[in-house]
Amino acid sequence: METSKRMKRESKRQNNLNISDFLSKGMEKMRASDIRDALKLVEGKKIISFAGGLPDPETFPHNEVKEIVRMLEHSDFSSSFQYGATLGMRELRKELAKFVSKRGILNANEDNVLISAGSQEAIYILCFLLLDPGDDIIVEAPTYVAALNAMRLRNPVFHGIPIKNNGMDMDDLEKEIKEIEAVGRKVKFIYTVPSSQNPGGVTMSMDNRKRLLELAEEHNILIIEDDAYGFLAFDGNAPDAIKSLDTTGRVIYTSTFSKILAPGFRLGWVIASTEIISKMELMKQSIDLHSSTFTQRIALETLRRGVIERNMPKVRKLYKEKRDVMIKSIEEWFPKNVKYSVPDGGMFIFVWLDQKIDTRKLLQDAIKRGVAFVPGSGFYHDDSGNNTMRLNFSRPSTEEIRDGIKILGALIKEATT
Amino acid sequence: METSKRMKRESKRQNNLNISDFLSKGMEKMRASDIRDALKLVEGKKIISFAGGLPDPETFPHNEVKEIVRMLEHSDFSSSFQYGATLGMRELRKELAKFVSKRGILNANEDNVLISAGSQEAIYILCFLLLDPGDDIIVEAPTYVAALNAMRLRNPVFHGIPIKNNGMDMDDLEKEIKEIEAVGRKVKFIYTVPSSQNPGGVTMSMDNRKRLLELAEEHNILIIEDDAYGFLAFDGNAPDAIKSLDTTGRVIYTSTFSKILAPGFRLGWVIASTEIISKMELMKQSIDLHSSTFTQRIALETLRRGVIERNMPKVRKLYKEKRDVMIKSIEEWFPKNVKYSVPDGGMFIFVWLDQKIDTRKLLQDAIKRGVAFVPGSGFYHDDSGNNTMRLNFSRPSTEEIRDGIKILGALIKEATT
Repeated sequence: METSKRMKRESKRQNNLNISDFLSKGMEKMRASDIRDALKLVEGKKIISFAGGLPDPETFPHNEVKEIVRMLEHSDFSSSFQYGATLGMRELRKELAKFVSKRGILNANEDNVLISAGSQEAIYILCFLLLDPGDDIIVEAPTYVAALNAMRLRNPVFHGIPIKNNGMDMDDLEKEIKEIEAVGRKVKFIYTVPSSQNPGGVTMSMDNRKRLLELAEEHNILIIEDDAYGFLAFDGNAPDAIKSLDTTGRVIYTSTFSKILAPGFRLGWVIASTEIISKMELMKQSIDLHSSTFTQRIALETLRRGVIERNMPKVRKLYKEKRDVMIKSIEEWFPKNVKYSVPDGGMFIFVWLDQKIDTRKLLQDAIKRGVAFVPGSGFYHDDSGNNTMRLNFSRPSTEEIRDGIKILGALIKEATT
Repeated sequence: METSKRMKRESKRQNNLNISDFLSKGMEKMRASDIRDALKLVEGKKIISFAGGLPDPETFPHNEVKEIVRMLEHSDFSSSFQYGATLGMRELRKELAKFVSKRGILNANEDNVLISAGSQEAIYILCFLLLDPGDDIIVEAPTYVAALNAMRLRNPVFHGIPIKNNGMDMDDLEKEIKEIEAVGRKVKFIYTVPSSQNPGGVTMSMDNRKRLLELAEEHNILIIEDDAYGFLAFDGNAPDAIKSLDTTGRVIYTSTFSKILAPGFRLGWVIASTEIISKMELMKQSIDLHSSTFTQRIALETLRRGVIERNMPKVRKLYKEKRDVMIKSIEEWFPKNVKYSVPDGGMFIFVWLDQKIDTRKLLQDAIKRGVAFVPGSGFYHDDSGNNTMRLNFSRPSTEEIRDGIKILGALIKEATT
C-alpha cells in the first residue's frame, strides 16, 4: 500500500462510522424484550429464574427423537439436509391439518398450512403483510410481549382491551370498535391468545369466542388467533379454537411445536385461507426461504408416531403440579392484598401488586437476592401495568419455586411497607 | 345456534372476504422468485433441472453428522432442544469468528457474529434495518434474485452496475455514485456478491475490492458483502473478503452453512461491528426469536471437528468437474454466438443468448422437452436480461448435464433460426 493511501486509511480509522446515520426511520421504535433483558442479567449466574418461558427439559421426548434420527439415517438423511419448499414439507403440513382437529378445526388441508419459525415468525409476517403505519389494531391488555414488539415495528395505533376471567371483555371490545369507527377509522385485526393467555393466564369462554367472531364479521375485522397454549390446558380440554367457528377465512390461526415438542427446533405453523397462506409464503421466501428441513423431518415423525400425543398428558400433569406449588407458595408468602391469576394451562402466573410498587425496580433487588421475573409493563401495549409481574413455573424445579416465591414475598412485603 | 343466527352465518359464508382489502400497501410489490416458480413447474416430474441452487447431496457429511448426533445424545441433547440466545450459540459464534480467518478476516470475535437463518435472513434484516422507501441502493447486474426480492419489499431506488470479468466495474460504479450525489441524493448501501458471483459466475479482483471499499469510504456508503461462495473457489483461493480490509465497520459480511454443510439446517452468519450486530439482534428477536438450537449445536461440532474443513476440498473438486462437463457440453451443443461465464467457483453458469430470444418463453418449451433452468431477467433489478439464463451444475449428475445441455442447445438453435 502506498504511504499516502495508508495515511488516508489511518486517518479514517479514527472516524468510525455512526450506524444511526444509516438506520431506517421505522427502526427507532425497535426495543428489546424485557424478558430477554432480564435473561441477560441472569446469564451465567446461579439464580432462580421465573423470567423466561422455557419448557421443563423433562418434557422433551429425547428417546423418541433419538429413535427417529436413527431411522432417518437409514432413509431420509439426504433430503433432510437439502433445501425445501417455502410452505414447509408437504407431509408435515398434511399431518398438521389433521392434528388441529384436536382444537376443533376440521376442514383444513395441507394447502391451508404454512410452517413457520415458531409462531413468532408467523406473527411477524402477518404484521408486515397486513399493517401500514398508523393502522388501528386491537390487542389484549396485557398480551404476549414478542407479538407487541413485532407489531411495534409497523407503528400501528394500539387499542388494548383488558382481560377478565373469561378473557378479553366483549362489551369493552364492542365499545372500542364502535369508538374507532365513530371517528371514521377501521380496525385491521384483533390479536388474541384465547387459551391460557400469556401472560394473563385466562381462557376465553366459548361464548366469548363466538361473540368475538360475530363482532369481527359484523365490522369486517381479521382475527389473529395465537393458540400457543391450546394444547396445554391442564384438564386437556381448552375450548375449541376460534378458527373452528370460522366459515369465511377471517381467522388466521397460529400455533407452535415449542411447548409440545422442543422450542430449539424453531417450528410453528399457521392455519388460514389459501389466499392468506400464499401471501405469507411469498413473504417468508424473502425472510428465510423456508424453515429447517432437518427439524421439520423430525417433527413430522413425532406426529406420525404419536410421540406428541403421548407426551402432552405428561406435560400437562407436570405443569399443573408446578402451578399448584407456585400458587400454594404465593398464598403462603405474598401479602394478602396481592392479586394473581390461577391459570388453567400454559406456563405463567400473572401478579398484580400494590399500585405503588414498580416491578422494574423490584426486579433489580430481586436479582440481588437471587430471583428473576419479568416486569409486567412490557406486556402492555401502552407500557402501563408498572405494578405487575409475570412468573414462569414451567422451567424452575418445585424446590426453586418454593424458595424463590418465599424470597419474592419478603421483598414485596418490604416494598409495600 | 338460533335459526336467525345460523342464517346470518350462512349468508356470510357466501361472501368470503377478499384478503387484498387487508394487505399493507408495501406488499403489492411482493413477487415470487422465478426460481421457485420454475421449481414448482417441475415438481413431481422427471425432469433434468438446472433451475435450483441445490448442493449435490454427495457433499453432505452424513456419517460425521450421525456421529455428532450420537455424541449429543449423551451430553447436550436437552440444551439443543431448548430456547437459545437471539444472537446464536456463543460457542458457535466463537468458532465462526475463527473460521472467517480463512477469508482474511482476522480481528473478529464472538460479539461481531450473529447467527441467521441462512444468509437470506441476514440480507432481509439489513433491508428493513437500513432502508426507507425511496432510498438509493446499488446492486450488481445481474445479482442474487432472493436478495433483490427482499430489497423490493422496501421499495428502494435500484441502481445496477453491470458485472465484467473482474466483477462490478469500478469506473461505472464511481460514475453512478457521483450521478446520484449530483442530484442531491445519497447511496445507502452497495450489495455485492464478490466471489463466484451468483448468477454471473465472476470474481471481483483484489484491486477492485480495495477500490470498492475506498469509494464507499469516500462517499460514506455501507457495503453488504454476500460471501455465500467464498469458500467454494475451485482452486481454494478466492481473494480475501472485502471485510478483511475494513477498518471502520463499514462492511457487513454475510455467509452461510448452506453450501459447505447443509442448507436444510437453515444457518448462516453475519460478521459486522457490534453496533450493527446489536441492531440486527433486536430485529431478529421480533422475526423468529433465534435460529434452531438443534442445528446450531450440530454445526458447532462440525467446525470443532474440522468436518467442514475436510469437506470443502471434496465439494470444490466435485463442482469443478461438473462445471467442466457443463462448459464442454455448451461448447459442443450451443450455437457459437452464445456468451457464457466460466465460473471459478460456486454452482452456476450464466448464459447470454441472441438478443431476440426471450428465455421465459424458452423455458416453457424446455420443460416440455424435460429440461428446466431459470430465466435470467429475475436476476436484474430492472427486469432486463430477457435473453439470459442461469444454469445450475451442482445438483444434476454429469450424465444429466450432458443430456440436458444437448436438448437446450437444440432448442436454442431452433429459436435462433
